[in-house]
Amino acid sequence: MNSTPTSPPDKVLFTPGPLSTSPTVKQAMLRDVGSWDQEFIDIVQRIRSQLLTLAGVSKAAGYEAVPLQGSGSFGVEAAIGCGVPPGGKMLSLVNGAYGERIVKMAQHLKIDQVVLRTEEHEIPDVEKLRQTLADDAEITNVIVVHCETTTGIVNPIEEIGNVVAAAGRIYTVDAMSSFGALPIDLPACHIDYLISSANKCLQGVPGFSFVLARRAVLEASEGHARSLCLDLLDQWQAFETHGRFRYSPPTHSFLALEQALVELEAEGGMAGRAARYEENRRTLIAGMRRLGFREYLQPEQQSCIISTFHYPADPKFNFNTFYNVLKERGSIIYPGKLGDVDCFRIGTIGHMFPADVENLLAAIEDAIGVMELDMTMVAAC
Amino acid sequence: MNSTPTSPPDKVLFTPGPLSTSPTVKQAMLRDVGSWDQEFIDIVQRIRSQLLTLAGVSKAAGYEAVPLQGSGSFGVEAAIGCGVPPGGKMLSLVNGAYGERIVKMAQHLKIDQVVLRTEEHEIPDVEKLRQTLADDAEITNVIVVHCETTTGIVNPIEEIGNVVAAAGRIYTVDAMSSFGALPIDLPACHIDYLISSANKCLQGVPGFSFVLARRAVLEASEGHARSLCLDLLDQWQAFETHGRFRYSPPTHSFLALEQALVELEAEGGMAGRAARYEENRRTLIAGMRRLGFREYLQPEQQSCIISTFHYPADPKFNFNTFYNVLKERGSIIYPGKLGDVDCFRIGTIGHMFPADVENLLAAIEDAIGVMELDMTMVAAC
Repeated sequence: MNSTPTSPPDKVLFTPGPLSTSPTVKQAMLRDVGSWDQEFIDIVQRIRSQLLTLAGVSKAAGYEAVPLQGSGSFGVEAAIGCGVPPGGKMLSLVNGAYGERIVKMAQHLKIDQVVLRTEEHEIPDVEKLRQTLADDAEITNVIVVHCETTTGIVNPIEEIGNVVAAAGRIYTVDAMSSFGALPIDLPACHIDYLISSANKCLQGVPGFSFVLARRAVLEASEGHARSLCLDLLDQWQAFETHGRFRYSPPTHSFLALEQALVELEAEGGMAGRAARYEENRRTLIAGMRRLGFREYLQPEQQSCIISTFHYPADPKFNFNTFYNVLKERGSIIYPGKLGDVDCFRIGTIGHMFPADVENLLAAIEDAIGVMELDMTMVAAC
Repeated sequence: MNSTPTSPPDKVLFTPGPLSTSPTVKQAMLRDVGSWDQEFIDIVQRIRSQLLTLAGVSKAAGYEAVPLQGSGSFGVEAAIGCGVPPGGKMLSLVNGAYGERIVKMAQHLKIDQVVLRTEEHEIPDVEKLRQTLADDAEITNVIVVHCETTTGIVNPIEEIGNVVAAAGRIYTVDAMSSFGALPIDLPACHIDYLISSANKCLQGVPGFSFVLARRAVLEASEGHARSLCLDLLDQWQAFETHGRFRYSPPTHSFLALEQALVELEAEGGMAGRAARYEENRRTLIAGMRRLGFREYLQPEQQSCIISTFHYPADPKFNFNTFYNVLKERGSIIYPGKLGDVDCFRIGTIGHMFPADVENLLAAIEDAIGVMELDMTMVAAC
């Protein structure tokens, strides 16, 4: 797996990201390229074009891909700062930590906002959204997270998009962890801005996010940006005029994504990748149920991206012990991020396969033994 | 040089960055680590501590290192957005494109500002700065670029800092391309915020910047940040409370910097590195003068970081031809960025050595031959 003999072997990352990537994706970073050189300019332009193709759209259809340095959240904040006009008001549909982060972004940007919250295990109330938009003409924008990796819940972006479009508002979707795994039809969902990252289901390395935008909406955002670095219009115009990033790009991350997109194609595109992720998750859920774990979400709310499990009811369960036993056996999982429910999360995206999930399940069985857990115990509440 | 046999050999990057890095720095990226795992948390904490040590300061002395995702400019904008209080006014000392970028940042952030410009070949007028601060009590912050890579000019940050401190204002220095090559004494210069990047003289790969801040000033910035992603106080508090990045970090870039700092130490620290860069530049300047090129700056304004040269006077000179001949022979140089003077730039930082400079000089001699330039011709103006 690893070509530097002195490095410890990598653990498999069962997390929402940064994820495990293939050895060949990492090896693509063994070069230094000039950020203003034509070779790199061509790579970036090809990637921008491929991102649109993956989304089923194109420049001809009126869409643009704008990569932006920084983590996925930087792309989300950029889309908010550029998408919401001065004096505008943003409605956020929130059912998890990433939705709450968006609320905090709007506060920092001093953008007026309305927040419609649902429980972390409940999808947004689309009827309430429709009513709120009808009642409040000041609302200019609506934003939602596609897959809330807080729990793994998948929000109904097409149903929401229909309501937003009918009300004539700008629609932004944070598809960070879903793009590449779940099908997204931008025109059918009426999406104006979609944000994702190189390091999620595309299986590149972290370093930048990208925004897919309707060109007409992007062009109309002149003067909106609350930040120069996060000004998507300025960034896009630089790509269109001379093909360069305005500011130093993470060149190695682009080389990695170039290779990752070759590997995505070789896997049968997004459908092929989604099939593997589904198989990962089926393997996980079947094994976890067999071991006596309970899922936090209803099956119909779940996706192949990440799954949340309740702590075992046995008070002998200790998350740190659990984590460390799994880590010693080569797997890294994620703690929970829920307000009042004790849980942990297991991601099933990235360069991992059903055999890796089987290894994880064996390690979990070991951990149960180490802690001498009674998995038949039923929770008090 | 390159361990993937299918990749073309790397060119040497005579640019202001992203720069050439060592093969071992790139090989450090052949791993995937979990961003919330203790191993990565420890790496980041060690790097934060090492950055302070490199700057000759420490937590005990009241300084903090805050890495931030994105390019160097993201760090600069963060330091501005956090450093300038609401209703504050920023004075920018500008003598190049990076200073102008700072002016544009303040415009986007809607920060009131005063700009003191000098010509691109002139250092700031410190007496005028003193007078302006005395005359305008509303000015809360002063900012300057240490080495303006527009030309390579080095601004007198200590002399400026003395004036700023005497006037009781907050002082921010953009040391993007200088940190690691030029000695900087933070306390002596009275610097409150210093910004640099992993990918300049530290010879890591791009992916993040870092801000070195006086803790008292950072702590007093509560409520200042104009952006959540660029909120340095929030970012720092996350490191202090649980050691994690708030949002996905470029894990591979951190692994690269960890290795780069080992190699910096092996080279004799910043003094050893600066000595090599000086040797690179001496070799370059001697060779370029021998070939008949003229430097844009006076020698005493120059540093070992990047040098600007006038185009040859012979009208047969064509920059694209020049660039391509050099590229074919393994070297990437940089175009000029000056308003009204035709010039090009050659950086002498990064993983490059006097022998690389000699190769570049041989290629430049070839290019002169290809274009049949008369290098004895004298410019009309």
